[in-house]
Amino acid sequence: MYKLVLVRHGESEWNKLNLFTGWTDVDLSDKGVAEATAAGKLLKDENLVFDVAYTSYLKRAIKTLHFILEPMNLLWIPTHKTWQLNERHYGALQGLSKLKTAQKYGEEQVMLWRRSYDIQPPALTKDDDRFPRHEDKYRDVPDQLIPLAESLKDTVVRVEDYWEKEIAPQIKQGKHVIIAAHGNSLRALIKYLDNLSNEEITDLNIPTGIPLVYTLDEQLRPLEKYYLGSDQHIQHKLEQVAHPDNILE
Amino acid sequence: MYKLVLVRHGESEWNKLNLFTGWTDVDLSDKGVAEATAAGKLLKDENLVFDVAYTSYLKRAIKTLHFILEPMNLLWIPTHKTWQLNERHYGALQGLSKLKTAQKYGEEQVMLWRRSYDIQPPALTKDDDRFPRHEDKYRDVPDQLIPLAESLKDTVVRVEDYWEKEIAPQIKQGKHVIIAAHGNSLRALIKYLDNLSNEEITDLNIPTGIPLVYTLDEQLRPLEKYYLGSDQHIQHKLEQVAHPDNILE
Repeated sequence: MYKLVLVRHGESEWNKLNLFTGWTDVDLSDKGVAEATAAGKLLKDENLVFDVAYTSYLKRAIKTLHFILEPMNLLWIPTHKTWQLNERHYGALQGLSKLKTAQKYGEEQVMLWRRSYDIQPPALTKDDDRFPRHEDKYRDVPDQLIPLAESLKDTVVRVEDYWEKEIAPQIKQGKHVIIAAHGNSLRALIKYLDNLSNEEITDLNIPTGIPLVYTLDEQLRPLEKYYLGSDQHIQHKLEQVAHPDNILE
Repeated sequence: MYKLVLVRHGESEWNKLNLFTGWTDVDLSDKGVAEATAAGKLLKDENLVFDVAYTSYLKRAIKTLHFILEPMNLLWIPTHKTWQLNERHYGALQGLSKLKTAQKYGEEQVMLWRRSYDIQPPALTKDDDRFPRHEDKYRDVPDQLIPLAESLKDTVVRVEDYWEKEIAPQIKQGKHVIIAAHGNSLRALIKYLDNLSNEEITDLNIPTGIPLVYTLDEQLRPLEKYYLGSDQHIQHKLEQVAHPDNILE
């Protein structure tokens, strides 16, 4: 039996402003830092220990991991960062406000972009400053994998690939793994682990900063999963992320 | 021609108390955090960019690296942590005050332990809580390499080994490398790079939180090196670390 812990990053500066974020590299807010530190203390109190950590190329996830590992005295463990655990790429919506987008395209269309499984939001053009190819950090990502926009389905493909090649082998070697990532990259992973349908995964909300603890069998099939913390706190966090006016992506 | 940047971590909680630290995993002080952030801003202003980072297993160096990379927007680069870049192991002196140690053994003996090249401080016994074998993080270090105490010469052996096997090949591949480490592990590296004698290296003081920028030729021999920042600031920092009453190790 193996253990695996997933944590969604806490509040970012753009969550507060209700802007579509995607691959935009915005910072954690002070509240986001506090959420991460609290998660680390909770994990320490539960005597959970990790051997290796994974996170995305985005600072809100990297810092969440840092502030989790710090109170656990685990800053020293190997930490792997990858674009494949990035948030879903939100295409031309990145940087737009939910309000303005809803006014322009209608609330229904916005919910379709946010909560459908295989519909991409409007794509970037390659000359757009937001196109990831313009950023040095994505220089090693092959052209055919650099997104102009992603559906959740597209995110699932790259997350699954990284899981199979990098993370699953570590878990099978007996390593205790923590993954600090994003609403949609974690949704992608949970869909795969729990074998959820396209409809089930789009209805699933993941609270921010709450460790999700999996027990896996030898084939890495989930035997059990639970959120760490008081029922009341988890319920409160779930209601926050389920509210349709909150954009945390 | 290659670039390499070395940074010695800023003030730790035990530097303030004037205690021998060695492998004791003490935190950065607020001043130490500020020193690291300032170093990051300085590097950014100089348009220096890194592809890969190295640090020790000790949080004061790991956090120094984090707070350097943060203002540079480089938290995403691969970061390798290793016990081989740890501070020199101070044996049975770890946790003792400089004052009490000088009273017990005499000032001369203390300076010999601190500034000789091949004299080890008093060794730990294997049942001592401070013996690194008792810490989970050193579980992969072979028995014959786990120290009970180290001279600077011992530190040079493990730092050279890591440099040759891990860091030098990355630099030769054209990667821009930053190393955030400790007074004596950086001394060890500088001795090797600059081909200094045992006497020269024990006289060399490295200021905290000041980036040391090397230009290396194709055989990784130094062509040039300089500290980044104003002459006045560097001079002030050098005087701090050269003062015999300051234990920063």
